[in-house]
Amino acid sequence: AAARISGYARFTGPDRLLIDEHTEVEFGGAVIATGSSPTIPPLLRALGERVIVNDDIFEWNDLPRSVAVFGPGIIGLELGQALARLGVRVTMFGVGGGIGPFTDPAVRDYAARTFAGEFPLYPDARDVAVQREGDSVLITHRIPRGEHETIAVDYVIAATGRAPNLRGLDLPAAGVALDARGLPKFDRHTLQIEQTPLFIAGDANADVPLLHEAADEGRIAGENAARFPRVQPGVRRSPLGIVFSDPQLATAGTRFADLVPGRFVTGRVSFEDQGRSRVMLRNRGLLHLYADSATGRLLGAELIGPGAEHLAHLIAWAHQLELKVRDVLALPFYHPVVEEGLRTALRDAQAQLDSLKAAA
Amino acid sequence: AAARISGYARFTGPDRLLIDEHTEVEFGGAVIATGSSPTIPPLLRALGERVIVNDDIFEWNDLPRSVAVFGPGIIGLELGQALARLGVRVTMFGVGGGIGPFTDPAVRDYAARTFAGEFPLYPDARDVAVQREGDSVLITHRIPRGEHETIAVDYVIAATGRAPNLRGLDLPAAGVALDARGLPKFDRHTLQIEQTPLFIAGDANADVPLLHEAADEGRIAGENAARFPRVQPGVRRSPLGIVFSDPQLATAGTRFADLVPGRFVTGRVSFEDQGRSRVMLRNRGLLHLYADSATGRLLGAELIGPGAEHLAHLIAWAHQLELKVRDVLALPFYHPVVEEGLRTALRDAQAQLDSLKAAA
Repeated sequence: AAARISGYARFTGPDRLLIDEHTEVEFGGAVIATGSSPTIPPLLRALGERVIVNDDIFEWNDLPRSVAVFGPGIIGLELGQALARLGVRVTMFGVGGGIGPFTDPAVRDYAARTFAGEFPLYPDARDVAVQREGDSVLITHRIPRGEHETIAVDYVIAATGRAPNLRGLDLPAAGVALDARGLPKFDRHTLQIEQTPLFIAGDANADVPLLHEAADEGRIAGENAARFPRVQPGVRRSPLGIVFSDPQLATAGTRFADLVPGRFVTGRVSFEDQGRSRVMLRNRGLLHLYADSATGRLLGAELIGPGAEHLAHLIAWAHQLELKVRDVLALPFYHPVVEEGLRTALRDAQAQLDSLKAAA
Repeated sequence: AAARISGYARFTGPDRLLIDEHTEVEFGGAVIATGSSPTIPPLLRALGERVIVNDDIFEWNDLPRSVAVFGPGIIGLELGQALARLGVRVTMFGVGGGIGPFTDPAVRDYAARTFAGEFPLYPDARDVAVQREGDSVLITHRIPRGEHETIAVDYVIAATGRAPNLRGLDLPAAGVALDARGLPKFDRHTLQIEQTPLFIAGDANADVPLLHEAADEGRIAGENAARFPRVQPGVRRSPLGIVFSDPQLATAGTRFADLVPGRFVTGRVSFEDQGRSRVMLRNRGLLHLYADSATGRLLGAELIGPGAEHLAHLIAWAHQLELKVRDVLALPFYHPVVEEGLRTALRDAQAQLDSLKAAA
């Protein structure tokens, strides 16, 4: 019989949970799907109620005059740009130069230039210090190749990442070893934690914190927990990540940083001269598409540009179907559409593949 | 050696052309790519300069106060809606109830209701009479289930179709038989006209008058003409048609009217309650997707809705790759995107396929 018990749980053994210190549950299999919470880096913790996270913004009744966003990642870019367009003075700080989901330096730099046209953006901020002063926060940092500057903002938004909600669970009591980040080892195809009857799904496992992946993981973890010990791998989809900024950012298939250097070609297209993008007055963007030098298989892409969410679906589908660039070029592309930009990048990649073959 | 001769050509034999009555050319193979011209139906011919075609509109320096559009097809809908949104009083008339590219009655009716919310639209106009009066045109017709009404408009736009530019070519002189519409028989994979050294590409063959198809046809026809008589079939792409109205209309793969009755299931989704479409305030639309009852293969779709151009690419690609509905459901769909609407229709189709299988 199914039962539902609400409360905070912690493990007391390999097959035992204690709920709110009053109810003990023995289980044959369990799914951990406790989600994640935003983290606030040590630098910002002294700012009290002047440091906020993304969820807090949706409680606002009025807009502040100014904010600093720490973390030009997915959440930081989406919220920071939205606030800037609503008239808030936004300054964005990052560490190490990263922008959104990108690992391809050319695409990342294009994105950095694009967003820097809307608000001050320091993806690799140096010598950052923050200090509360009344209802403001003073932020001092060293401008690239220049002096220090100090800005005052009403709020600091910490968009520096999220951490799985695992601390209260006492996983070690269930015999699970945790790594330096406090995370268990698990198999992403079965969601099983080591050889235990525990399965971990969604943001809680810190793998790909995306809704559509979490839905797959929840189903796989639930089925495996229910039929434990007959654990079976579930079907995972090709990677697909989208940032709903303007222009949008996306990655599909294997990202640049995860490719084997020297074993792939890069097909490129700029959306600055792409027909449909120009007609829409949205001709800003760059797509880099990677193909295996030996087989011609489409490996993945990183892109910023109009309709990136749609192009990324096409690329992720082609990737999961293990299509070659040549196969994709045989599929229909209408006119005039942004998909023709993707075709230009595919043709560029195919020309390079043909040259390699001719030279071999 | 390549040569280029400009002029009007007509055939004088199976391998002979006369250019502008001065230069005779003998050929081993020839490509006919003479395009098409808008046709003006007899009903409208007496209206003189008050009846215009789509190209004429782009010469306008001012907008008229009112127009009647004859033909709620692709061009009629795109231009008629654009003019209506620019403030022109638009009334649209059709014959037989057709709307855009649709053959599925439910999708067609949804589209008719949608456009009728912006301007008077009579897809199956009855007892239509037109009459020039000064600088106006008077149009009388019988309102559905009602009286006759007469409207006065500044211009009538004939968007009733285009005809291949073949008349001046004298194809019979080349030994080519023409059908009742004045068109030759040809093979759409080789573009060859019967067994002749003539190949016909693009709008001139009246097959699929779309730019991306014409580009394929031109290449296939050119290659075959150059290597005649070694004629080879070229690769044709899955059908894909898009109307750039708002919402957009699209067809992909096999259209409803071309399916074998009783051998398919229809997966449906309304965009009125689709998450992303609601967020964008563009939640109007309907997608019907067809799958083979026996094999589960995705056969095609007809759709009206937000981002239809992008969904139609995904569907046409899946169609050409001969994917089953189940295969497509294994591919990634992000959140929140309009592609999730497509997934809902796929799930609806799969549920019906599963029911059929369970009942068998």
